Amino acid sequence: MISRNQALILDTSDPLKDFRQQFILPEKTIYLDGNSLGALPKRTPIYLQEIIQKQWGEDLIKSWNLHDWIHWPQTVGTKIARLIGAKPNEVLVADSTSINLFKLLSGALKLRPDRRTILSEKGNFPTDLYMAQGLLALLEKDYQLKIVNQDTLFKSIDSSVAVVMLTEVNYLTGHRHDLKTLAETAHAQGALILVDLAHSAGAMPVDLNQNSIDLAVGCGYKYLNGGPGAPAYLYISEALQQTFPAFLTGWLGHADPFAFTENYVPAFGMNRHLCGTPPILSLAALDCGLDLLLEANLQEIRQKSLALGDLFIDQVEAQSPELVLATPRDPERRGSQVSFHHPNGYAVMQALIAQGVIGDFRSPDILRFGFAPLYNRFVDIWDAADQLCNILKSGQWNEPKFQKRQTVT
Amino acid sequence: MISRNQALILDTSDPLKDFRQQFILPEKTIYLDGNSLGALPKRTPIYLQEIIQKQWGEDLIKSWNLHDWIHWPQTVGTKIARLIGAKPNEVLVADSTSINLFKLLSGALKLRPDRRTILSEKGNFPTDLYMAQGLLALLEKDYQLKIVNQDTLFKSIDSSVAVVMLTEVNYLTGHRHDLKTLAETAHAQGALILVDLAHSAGAMPVDLNQNSIDLAVGCGYKYLNGGPGAPAYLYISEALQQTFPAFLTGWLGHADPFAFTENYVPAFGMNRHLCGTPPILSLAALDCGLDLLLEANLQEIRQKSLALGDLFIDQVEAQSPELVLATPRDPERRGSQVSFHHPNGYAVMQALIAQGVIGDFRSPDILRFGFAPLYNRFVDIWDAADQLCNILKSGQWNEPKFQKRQTVT
Repeated sequence: MISRNQALILDTSDPLKDFRQQFILPEKTIYLDGNSLGALPKRTPIYLQEIIQKQWGEDLIKSWNLHDWIHWPQTVGTKIARLIGAKPNEVLVADSTSINLFKLLSGALKLRPDRRTILSEKGNFPTDLYMAQGLLALLEKDYQLKIVNQDTLFKSIDSSVAVVMLTEVNYLTGHRHDLKTLAETAHAQGALILVDLAHSAGAMPVDLNQNSIDLAVGCGYKYLNGGPGAPAYLYISEALQQTFPAFLTGWLGHADPFAFTENYVPAFGMNRHLCGTPPILSLAALDCGLDLLLEANLQEIRQKSLALGDLFIDQVEAQSPELVLATPRDPERRGSQVSFHHPNGYAVMQALIAQGVIGDFRSPDILRFGFAPLYNRFVDIWDAADQLCNILKSGQWNEPKFQKRQTVT
Repeated sequence: MISRNQALILDTSDPLKDFRQQFILPEKTIYLDGNSLGALPKRTPIYLQEIIQKQWGEDLIKSWNLHDWIHWPQTVGTKIARLIGAKPNEVLVADSTSINLFKLLSGALKLRPDRRTILSEKGNFPTDLYMAQGLLALLEKDYQLKIVNQDTLFKSIDSSVAVVMLTEVNYLTGHRHDLKTLAETAHAQGALILVDLAHSAGAMPVDLNQNSIDLAVGCGYKYLNGGPGAPAYLYISEALQQTFPAFLTGWLGHADPFAFTENYVPAFGMNRHLCGTPPILSLAALDCGLDLLLEANLQEIRQKSLALGDLFIDQVEAQSPELVLATPRDPERRGSQVSFHHPNGYAVMQALIAQGVIGDFRSPDILRFGFAPLYNRFVDIWDAADQLCNILKSGQWNEPKFQKRQTVT
C-alpha cells in the first residue's frame, strides 16, 4: 500500500500527465469506464462543428470530393493501423464490430472450404459468439461453433478448425491472450486466426503483423475515444486480401461504385469490405480520438496502464480481502482493466457510482475497472480504491436503493 | 412557360415556405441534390453540441440509461414509422441500407424455403442488387437473382419467387412504382415484397401498411436530412415479425443483451435486428432531421414536389428540346426528381455546378435534379431551368475544364 501523497508524486513524474487536459471530464467523478465508453477529447466538439457547419452545411454533396469524405474509411483506417501494428492498406473503418465479425467469419469459412469448425472460448464477448451463431444458422450446413474453456484452447486447435476467433483481452476478466503462440498453433494446423481488439487497441501496443495475425476487428468507442457507437474497423493481412471474399457486398465495396453497374465486382484489397455509405459525423469524431491517441507513446501508455492496475490491486487487496481478483496478476497476461468478484457486485458498484467513481458491473458478480492512461491519474486510482474499500467496510451497499437494477448497467 | 415573377408569386402562396429558414443553405447556390445528401437543419448543430458536450462529455457511460441512448434505434424508428405508414413497432434504425437489405433478404429466403428466386428489376439501385448477389454467393445453393426489365416485371412474379425486391422511386429516372398492385401480385403468388424507400420516404406520403408491404429499408441522409452517411432503417410488417429470423445476430439483438450469455436468443419483434451498438452521434443528427420533417404535412410536401417537377419540366422542354425527359410525366408515376438524358451530361452538369446549381450526373447520360419541398423554392427551380438552358444554348459545357472526371460525381 502507498499513501495518497505517494500517488500524487507518481502523477508528477508521469510522462503522459499532460494528456488529461486534452479531455473534457465531469467534475467530482473518477471515470474508470473508458473501456466501455472513452472520454470526450476537447478537440472533438470543435472539429464536429466544422464538419457539420462547413462541410455538410455549406459544401453539401461536394464534400465527398472536396473534403475527401469518400476516402475517410481508408484514411482513418490508416491511423488505426499505426496503433495495431498493421500496414496502412490492411485496415478499414466500417460498420460495427458485429458486422465486421460477420464479414471476416464468412470469408474465413470460404478460405478453408474443407473445415467445419469456428473455435472460440467460453467467456468471449457475446457478440463474437452470436455473430458466429447467426452465420452458421444462415449457412445451414454441418458447421459448428466450438466454445471451449481457456485451458483446453490450445489442444482444441486441430485440422477441423477453419478459424480460431478470440478476443485479445477478455471484457470480463481482463485476461490477455498470448497472440503469438496462438497464431503459431493455429497456423501449424492450417487454421486462420481472428482477433477482436476491442479491449486492447489504444491501451497497449498491438502488433498484428509481428504476431502473424490473419484477421482482426475492433471497436472505436473504447480506448480510441471515438464517441458512443463510433464506427468499428476490420483488418485482413495483406497476404490474404486478394483471395479473401466479401459477402456483405454493398455499393461502396464495388470496384467502380460510381459506374452503377448491375453486377458486383469486388474492389481491390480491403475496399471490397466497405459495404454501405460511411457515417461521416461518427467517423469525424473517431478521427479526433485517434489523432489525440497517436500523439502519445504506446509503450508509455502500456507502462502506466499496468502501474495503475498494480496500484489498484495492491490497495484493494490490502484493505478488502472479500474482493476476489478476477484478473491475472501477471502483467503480461493482463489488459488495461482490473476486475474483482463480489457476490453483491451489482449493489457495491451502484454505491460506488453514487459516490462518483464510475466502473462497470458485469453479470454475474464482476466489478470491472478500466484504466485509460491518457486521463486517469494515479491519485484517481488511489481514491477509487479507497472509496471502494470504505463502501465494503461500512456495508453501505446494503441500502435498498443500490439493489434495484436498471435496464443497462 | 411562366415568368420569373410568376414563380415568385407561387412561393408567396406556398404553405411550406417557412420551412426554408429552418435550414442552413449555402449562399448563391441552388441545391437540387437533396435526394443525394439532404441539407443541414439549423437545429442539428445545436442539438449535436448538447449530445456531445453534455451527454457524452459529462454523463459519459450513464447516458445509455439517463438519456435512454439504448432505445434510440426504436424511438427514432417510431418517428420514421409516421412517415411511411407503419406501426410504431415496425421500424428500427440500424446500420446502413445495404446491411439492412441483407437482413431482410436472408430472412425472406428462410421464410420461403421452397423458393429459389429473388426478383428485381434492371436499373434498381446497385447496392440492392449487389447485396442480393453477396448473399446468394454466401449461400452457395441453387438460388438466383433474376433481374428483369420493368415491362416484364409483373409477369415475372411467379411461384418460384421468394421475394420481390424493388425501389419505390428509381434513383436514376425518378419512376415511381405502383406498390399496391405489385404487393397484390406478389402475394397472389405467395411471394414477399421488399421495398427500398430511399427516394420516396420524406418526399411523399408512403403507406406501407395500406399497401400490404412486407419488408422495407430506407436511407437517413436524403429527404430525411439526417446528415452524411446517417444510419438507415428497416421495416418488417407486424404479421411477419415473430417468424422472421435474424442472421446478423449482434449482442444488442439478443433477448437479454446485458445478461451476456453464451447463446444467441432473438429479442422480441424488430429488436432482434439491432445487431451492434448504435452510432449515437449520427442517430442524434437523424433525429433532428426527422423532428423537422414531422412538423410538415406530407400531402403538402408531395403537392409542392410535383409542382416543382412540373415547372422544371415545362421550362426546360420549352427552351431545350435536346434534353430528353427520362422521368415519367404522369405525377402518380413520378418521385421527387426530374432527370434528363443528354449525351454530354457529365460536362453539362459540371458547367451548371460551376454556376451554383447543384444537381447530379449519373452514368451514362443522366442529369438528375432532386426537389426537396422544405427548402427548394419555385424561383429556385425557375432559375435552375434558366441556367441549364443557357448553358446548353451557349455551348458553355464544351469548355475542357468541364470534361475532366472527378472520383465521385
